Amino acid sequence: MDFTFIDGGVTAAKGFTAAGIHCGIRKNRDKKDLALLVSDRPAETAAVYTKNLVIGAPCTVTKQHLADNTARAIICNSGIANTCAADGIEKAVAMCDMTAKALGIDTKDVLVASTGVIGPSINLMPIEQGLPSLTAALSVQGHTDAAQSIMTTDTAVKEFSLQFILGDRVCTMGGMAKGSGMIAPNMATMLCFITTDAAIDTPLLKKALADVADETFNMMSIDGDTSTNDMLILMANGAADNPVVKDNNADYEVFTAALHALCVKLCRALAADGEGATKLLECRVSGGATKQDARLVAKSVISSSLLKSAMFGADANWGRVLCAIGYSGASLSPNGVNVAFRSSAGSVNVCENGAGIEFSEEKAKTVLSQKEIIIDILLSDGGSQATAWGCDLTYDYVRINGDYRS
Amino acid sequence: MDFTFIDGGVTAAKGFTAAGIHCGIRKNRDKKDLALLVSDRPAETAAVYTKNLVIGAPCTVTKQHLADNTARAIICNSGIANTCAADGIEKAVAMCDMTAKALGIDTKDVLVASTGVIGPSINLMPIEQGLPSLTAALSVQGHTDAAQSIMTTDTAVKEFSLQFILGDRVCTMGGMAKGSGMIAPNMATMLCFITTDAAIDTPLLKKALADVADETFNMMSIDGDTSTNDMLILMANGAADNPVVKDNNADYEVFTAALHALCVKLCRALAADGEGATKLLECRVSGGATKQDARLVAKSVISSSLLKSAMFGADANWGRVLCAIGYSGASLSPNGVNVAFRSSAGSVNVCENGAGIEFSEEKAKTVLSQKEIIIDILLSDGGSQATAWGCDLTYDYVRINGDYRS
Repeated sequence: MDFTFIDGGVTAAKGFTAAGIHCGIRKNRDKKDLALLVSDRPAETAAVYTKNLVIGAPCTVTKQHLADNTARAIICNSGIANTCAADGIEKAVAMCDMTAKALGIDTKDVLVASTGVIGPSINLMPIEQGLPSLTAALSVQGHTDAAQSIMTTDTAVKEFSLQFILGDRVCTMGGMAKGSGMIAPNMATMLCFITTDAAIDTPLLKKALADVADETFNMMSIDGDTSTNDMLILMANGAADNPVVKDNNADYEVFTAALHALCVKLCRALAADGEGATKLLECRVSGGATKQDARLVAKSVISSSLLKSAMFGADANWGRVLCAIGYSGASLSPNGVNVAFRSSAGSVNVCENGAGIEFSEEKAKTVLSQKEIIIDILLSDGGSQATAWGCDLTYDYVRINGDYRS
Repeated sequence: MDFTFIDGGVTAAKGFTAAGIHCGIRKNRDKKDLALLVSDRPAETAAVYTKNLVIGAPCTVTKQHLADNTARAIICNSGIANTCAADGIEKAVAMCDMTAKALGIDTKDVLVASTGVIGPSINLMPIEQGLPSLTAALSVQGHTDAAQSIMTTDTAVKEFSLQFILGDRVCTMGGMAKGSGMIAPNMATMLCFITTDAAIDTPLLKKALADVADETFNMMSIDGDTSTNDMLILMANGAADNPVVKDNNADYEVFTAALHALCVKLCRALAADGEGATKLLECRVSGGATKQDARLVAKSVISSSLLKSAMFGADANWGRVLCAIGYSGASLSPNGVNVAFRSSAGSVNVCENGAGIEFSEEKAKTVLSQKEIIIDILLSDGGSQATAWGCDLTYDYVRINGDYRS
């Protein structure tokens, strides 16, 4: 399905406002550090969380507040993760309390998220002092301010929105995401907040989010490190007045396809802006024995430090692709593997039936010198497909992470 | 058990000779590329291999030649991995044939290994032409030449040897290893050839090797990439005339302890010389619920790109240790985790009961600026221990792997 992308981020859908300010959690006054996203009515809300056992206090509190599958607002700070701090839960609850008070709503209707350094206790003073101006700034124009406020080492704002039809109503969906390091497959992944004015029943909302997360965020890796604070939240407030999606019908398919299209956009933006990245890597696998096998192969390839380094150097070292396929854990025939590198500069086949073939190194260099590289893998084991996203491994990844805290 | 380390590498044990030359597989004439290791009598031989599905032709041929658990010689080239080439098996067999002919022994008694670029077909001409001078150079002094010949991006020779007593006989064991990138836990790992003059029955030799590999080579990671050509071979030729070790008795314990001590030395040397590495990381875990849990934690921590980058920057970012513990897959209580960083410059506790504690950043910087860093993790879940070895992630890893083939 094709969708029309529009401007507006998380406030493109009816009934949502947002704001983002610098309140002082971060020392750098040029860096916004507090975001607020509000629905003017209760929204059916689904979420998926990090699978890390060391889980951030905000994840725990958000999970509790979503026991009724309903929310009105999300408060999110950057700078401090509020994780592995003895007073974490208490402070995450306090963030919800303050926000609820400022908005005149119930604490249980506020969700909380934090991202930044793990360990330090979060100082609530700047948040408390910042809330009046934050709530005063809430508007449908506030989406980019909000998206900027949740960034850490991100170099680009990630927000997209699109429209689709349910019944005879135009529905809108928008999302913002942050994440640049500590991103790995097999989890809920980073912070991503999605809003829609579509009306949809909770069980289907949850199913759509879980299914799409598996196909998108869980197929992305920047560095193999699964964060402690990952959260993906989807709020559906029904303001579009469409007939409520209650069954696994055509409308549900449209809704899921729209969510998938939006999440792919966000994933590609996250991977392209991976810490230190100069290139987006997309690994497309087809011919897998099962979906799971195809996924394992795609994820293994985009996670390989050796391949990521080779892509940085525009070096068509396809042996590393074969190596990563081999240790992926997937069931496959090594002698039936075909590999090609593709980009806007063309395509070059490098491996057929598990063995190298002659190719022009010069052409390969040109293909691999573009900003977006597709690693195309054709297996000979069945008809299953999967796609994964990642980025190259560069000097800057090491620089950024060699001294992140100072 | 304490052991006396001596000089002599793979030829320290009685009955072994070795040689290494530049034959021309590599263009750089200063880089040796062909090694030969020979026992003057048949040696009981055990081996473990890569678990990568894409397996190098030399691994396959060596496995076939070890069907009778006996070998006399190992021929090993660097430069080309002889993997993912259509004529791989044929050429690996030919390498054994040539070597057997040059030595006047049976082809099945020759094992073969290759390391280098995956993909290209190996040119046998330089090997054939080099074999006369290689066999002529065989001597008990040839151990370092041999160890140099198997190096790829390694910057240091890795060879050690030690002595132990079985019955009333002094036995000797020595090993050489190569490996700098494409090294990950959960496999046989890189190339390592160990010789001993101890007499030991095949089943016990195999058990000792498998057990020790699990505790040493399988607990090491440079970059998380499991190579296609990993091989660990242990030859025991009985030249020490000790009473043959036939039972799981005190002599077997001494033998296993000696093998463990040697493999730890080799692993530490491999990790310290990881591609681009400036520091050796050793993660010691205790208090694990099970051995497997302790291993998962230790391996996860030394494999984290984020932690590896922080160690490069001497940044005591312990939150990344907690994060890697949390996603390790181990069963544990996050609130019972204690972490300390140690080195020759002292020790600094950074986390108690899963939460940060006050510590001197200045002292932490000094501790983490040494060449060998111990990450000490105390869990509160039981009495199991494990140790894993790795290295920091540096600019040079990216430089080395951004353009490895040229």
